Amino acid sequence: MHATTIHGDRDIRFEEVPDPVLLTDDDAIVRVVAACVCGSDLWYYRGVARTTGRIGHEFVGVVEQVGSAVSKVRVGDFVIAPFYVCDMECVNCRNGFSTSCLRSSWWGADDRQGHPADGGQGEKVRVPLADGTLAVVPGPVDDALVPHLLTLSDVMGTGHHAAVSAGVRPGGSVVVVGDGAVGLCAVLAASRLGAGRIVAMSRHPERAALAREFGATDVVAERGEEGIAVIRDLFDGVGADRGLECVGTEESMAQALGSTRPGGQVGYVGVPHLNPELKMRPLFGRNVGVRGGVAPVRNYVEELLPEVLSGAIRPGRVFDLELPMAEVAEAYRAMDERRAIKVLLRP
Amino acid sequence: MHATTIHGDRDIRFEEVPDPVLLTDDDAIVRVVAACVCGSDLWYYRGVARTTGRIGHEFVGVVEQVGSAVSKVRVGDFVIAPFYVCDMECVNCRNGFSTSCLRSSWWGADDRQGHPADGGQGEKVRVPLADGTLAVVPGPVDDALVPHLLTLSDVMGTGHHAAVSAGVRPGGSVVVVGDGAVGLCAVLAASRLGAGRIVAMSRHPERAALAREFGATDVVAERGEEGIAVIRDLFDGVGADRGLECVGTEESMAQALGSTRPGGQVGYVGVPHLNPELKMRPLFGRNVGVRGGVAPVRNYVEELLPEVLSGAIRPGRVFDLELPMAEVAEAYRAMDERRAIKVLLRP
Repeated sequence: MHATTIHGDRDIRFEEVPDPVLLTDDDAIVRVVAACVCGSDLWYYRGVARTTGRIGHEFVGVVEQVGSAVSKVRVGDFVIAPFYVCDMECVNCRNGFSTSCLRSSWWGADDRQGHPADGGQGEKVRVPLADGTLAVVPGPVDDALVPHLLTLSDVMGTGHHAAVSAGVRPGGSVVVVGDGAVGLCAVLAASRLGAGRIVAMSRHPERAALAREFGATDVVAERGEEGIAVIRDLFDGVGADRGLECVGTEESMAQALGSTRPGGQVGYVGVPHLNPELKMRPLFGRNVGVRGGVAPVRNYVEELLPEVLSGAIRPGRVFDLELPMAEVAEAYRAMDERRAIKVLLRP
Repeated sequence: MHATTIHGDRDIRFEEVPDPVLLTDDDAIVRVVAACVCGSDLWYYRGVARTTGRIGHEFVGVVEQVGSAVSKVRVGDFVIAPFYVCDMECVNCRNGFSTSCLRSSWWGADDRQGHPADGGQGEKVRVPLADGTLAVVPGPVDDALVPHLLTLSDVMGTGHHAAVSAGVRPGGSVVVVGDGAVGLCAVLAASRLGAGRIVAMSRHPERAALAREFGATDVVAERGEEGIAVIRDLFDGVGADRGLECVGTEESMAQALGSTRPGGQVGYVGVPHLNPELKMRPLFGRNVGVRGGVAPVRNYVEELLPEVLSGAIRPGRVFDLELPMAEVAEAYRAMDERRAIKVLLRP
């Protein structure tokens, strides 16, 4: 079969690799129906972080084989894989934080038993801890639903995590920093949680339009101190109730914190670049809470999947380019050059 | 009259000052019934921070005079003053964060109209924005209640803020870092919010005993990495649901963060020393939220006062030394040398 590999800066290939086989009784083999490129994949692509080998961590597909200990997932099931492996049984999984699963591992890295794991941007994937990791989609799956289901693998669950971490409440006001796929999904998440006013910070007309489709009531193009001043003016001179940080830079965090009122809270899901630090005294003085992290998207499938299936939410709208998986290198280029918000890949 | 003044490191005096007079229509004059020394006063006492002049910010007393615009507070009322001035009318006050009042000021510093404000450790105090700042205690006040009422001026409200900021819930587990008056009140606050298990971190037998009286189910004497290991062992190997940080040092924050499980939250009220910074990546990886700050104790009076009046909570137990206000210098010494948890002063 073929899978995506990275060999260095901007060197993405779709090449022949061995077919996956069951390595433990807990494994499943999934034939990928759709995968995609993540903003965080670009870190490796751009050489900001280093990795080589298999890459990709978002996919949906159909189960082809299961190990003898797998009982919840069956051959033929359509499944959603979160961007990490988890057992959904340990104390952290039960607490709702499967990204801290005591047996967690990452696609493309070794699993907890020392077996090399596949990446998600391939034709097939060996899935460790299949009963925990995979979420089964009930019934036959209409092809038109595939992009929407695929977002539950990462971006929709991550946007939801930003909104939940910030404590978005019905009627409250929200500012979303970041107009990438996660930021747009955060707008949608805030909207379905009932926020009364949602400001998307964007200077890209197409992204701003999608933000409005997802429920943004206002779009603010200004950034930095000027952006903060505009936001505060919108909300009683003090800022919005909640800030959703969906980028991961020091600037975006400062934007979110500065846009949030005293006593408000920032939910952050942008992977922090370069181990940034938060100054405590401004947070202390303004009582702005900071909560978030790597999103436990597997725990959120139960809440979000019914709304995807019913069409109540259409998060797959973030995919504005679809390519054959063999053209994965072009998919990375399109996202790197911001020609696409997010690229869907089909084998 | 006499009031407490600070003149430099460890130079506290109780000296003659002019009687306060009404300076604006919003002012009241309060005859102090009881005041106390705060852990944060010791910063100035020790020369860690600099100030000179009037000091003290926690007091209760009886209203002697009111300005012509004062309508909620009447001559003869027994009142609780929070550790700051606020109007209880602006958007931040209405949002529950009166410490961010748009007209706030601090005892001992100039108020928003540029008038010098009195300190709280004096025989009388001019209170700006009296209708907002002062909370009236209904009915005649039994003298035995005075210490308990006085804690609503700061430490009980601040301990409550730690618990509320952490999101303490019925049945949940809590670790409290700090066995000073605020930490002990945080134990009491977690208990009244229904926490199922409360660990007090203390190595002082008397403080640990009071923590148990306030509802602590466990006392842990270990600190640092060893303390974190003990706490994690107590809670499924992962830590408590909530951590309450009631000291304000880098070490105490690290203790609270390390003792809190993935997906948990730290409520912090210890005034951060020396502008410390929080590293984002460990918070991100473990999804531990951080929320807190300068406690809006004025907003909490409504919730806590009935329980003080009924005797359901007895936070005034943190006062383990009472002195005449004229001996205020000894009060500072006793707290500086940790001979007393908290000293109550009577004029």
